[in-house]
Amino acid sequence: MTSTTVTMGKGCWLGFDLGGTKMLATVWDGKFKSLGSERKKTKGFKGAQTGLERMMDTIDEALSKADRSKEGLAGIGVACPGPLDLEKGILIDAPNLGWRNVPLRKELGKRYGCPVVIANDVDAGVYGEYRFGAGRGARCVVGVFPGTGIGGGCVYEGRILRGRKSSCMEIGHIPLIPDGPLCGCGRRGCLEAVASRLAISSAAAAAAYRGAAPVLLEKAGTDISRIRSGVLRASIEGGDRAVEEIVRLAAQHLGVALAGVIHLLGPEVVVLGGGLVEALPELYLKEVSHAVDRRIMAGFAGTFKLATAKLGDDATVKGVAAWAMEEIASRVAAGS
Amino acid sequence: MTSTTVTMGKGCWLGFDLGGTKMLATVWDGKFKSLGSERKKTKGFKGAQTGLERMMDTIDEALSKADRSKEGLAGIGVACPGPLDLEKGILIDAPNLGWRNVPLRKELGKRYGCPVVIANDVDAGVYGEYRFGAGRGARCVVGVFPGTGIGGGCVYEGRILRGRKSSCMEIGHIPLIPDGPLCGCGRRGCLEAVASRLAISSAAAAAAYRGAAPVLLEKAGTDISRIRSGVLRASIEGGDRAVEEIVRLAAQHLGVALAGVIHLLGPEVVVLGGGLVEALPELYLKEVSHAVDRRIMAGFAGTFKLATAKLGDDATVKGVAAWAMEEIASRVAAGS
Repeated sequence: MTSTTVTMGKGCWLGFDLGGTKMLATVWDGKFKSLGSERKKTKGFKGAQTGLERMMDTIDEALSKADRSKEGLAGIGVACPGPLDLEKGILIDAPNLGWRNVPLRKELGKRYGCPVVIANDVDAGVYGEYRFGAGRGARCVVGVFPGTGIGGGCVYEGRILRGRKSSCMEIGHIPLIPDGPLCGCGRRGCLEAVASRLAISSAAAAAAYRGAAPVLLEKAGTDISRIRSGVLRASIEGGDRAVEEIVRLAAQHLGVALAGVIHLLGPEVVVLGGGLVEALPELYLKEVSHAVDRRIMAGFAGTFKLATAKLGDDATVKGVAAWAMEEIASRVAAGS
Repeated sequence: MTSTTVTMGKGCWLGFDLGGTKMLATVWDGKFKSLGSERKKTKGFKGAQTGLERMMDTIDEALSKADRSKEGLAGIGVACPGPLDLEKGILIDAPNLGWRNVPLRKELGKRYGCPVVIANDVDAGVYGEYRFGAGRGARCVVGVFPGTGIGGGCVYEGRILRGRKSSCMEIGHIPLIPDGPLCGCGRRGCLEAVASRLAISSAAAAAAYRGAAPVLLEKAGTDISRIRSGVLRASIEGGDRAVEEIVRLAAQHLGVALAGVIHLLGPEVVVLGGGLVEALPELYLKEVSHAVDRRIMAGFAGTFKLATAKLGDDATVKGVAAWAMEEIASRVAAGS
């Protein structure tokens, strides 16, 4: 890594976070100090071609704010929703955006004249926490991000753990409850179906509907699209015991699944992040931690640390830039 | 790997499988052709010091059968039950043998004057299948061996996936059934508690006791220590439908847990092995396969292959020798 930093330290690195609602580009120097940033709405509905142009505009403006030209770019890392063809740098399918088969590496490479690396957005976030945040320096870091679904990622001995062509670590789809509730993937009883923020919001809406969560009812009614992490926190702080119990139960489910992941991968650090964890860090971490402790084998006790993510939104955009540097260096080393 | 084979090809490699009841040493040439083998009872109860001497006797006799001297040894690999200190080459605790803190690397290194690498026995078996058997050349291979417990291992991009100091991939202790039966690890509802050969034997003994498995009752009575894999096969072949159903159910549980593992690691090959699988390969593989298919996300369908192990007992003793070669080469490459 040191020699990489030296050889590649002259240029700057661009990290790009392609989200469902917003896109974010940040220019980093060789030591990953931020030089400038730009954010735009994604507007996926306008199609991939317009989307690519918006991405390039965002990059251009970030470069301009950083007072750098594209000639100064050593590489670009783009964090995208999956599935991806990591080798070819193609976004295969982003249902939230309605984009398919977007050749990001080719298009951005042509425009900026530098290597382009793409990564799954969750993986990029976990890599960011591994390099700069809660998992710094650990041999194995597992990251879990409960949101609409439950994203997971793993950095193992400095590399993002990946499937054959794409990302893996689908923690949300670990089978957890035999014959449990239907999951978005079509199966039943996946972790995600009982422990995602969406599952929590649904259960909380039902509690509000039957009069068990008056604060929530007043703040957001029974529309689950309004019951986001901040509202859940306000409801719990306002005294809605039913909502607190729903969050605790979800966190316990996640802890049980996590015990299985720890038994498989033996991580030193498990990073929990995302809006729900940020809104309720103590309650959530405590409940997950208890559930893990109750489920973990004696030999694994004390071998890992649960921690909340440290970098917030920067994890992804910084992580993907650093991952681009690492990937490009390892390709150079492999002579490909 | 090629250059390794060339530089280290002059010597021969010794693989050692330290089992609960028997020990096996095989001498391999640089291309992993067997040159000679020796097998002895382990007799763990005689203590670690006597055990070490027995190990050395076994190695000496294998060398003699292979017509090689210890000076010809390029390295030794020892597959042991865990937990192990992989870095220091120490067997920390082998409850089945009653041995603790045995400095295998130091003792064998002193005697044979060559590098010694230790590995978890299941990991060694999976590595063997990856190098020479059912998982040959795959980017990611997961191995599962249902026996008294359920062992698991993973070779990821040519390397054994490991925990901080020891093995990981404790597939048997994935939480599967909430509030399920008690597991040997002290927790409840682990995969092992419902799907190991031991769990099957217990359930089959109960079936025999209540008159639902007459063939089994006649062959083995109701003593679970007599109900081993061959007896289970004979009982099913003899028409004990209850026993067949018990095995199917266990295989289904294993398939569900495996779906979670596939979602996490994205392997191309999953190898199933051990006595139970060898005794009932078709029934078992079919049932696991159906259960995995029912639980797997659409994006993972068709990305992996389930296969039975190909090497039998050789997987471990050949795998650990090949792993010793790989480890020693990578240490040389890392300059340590």
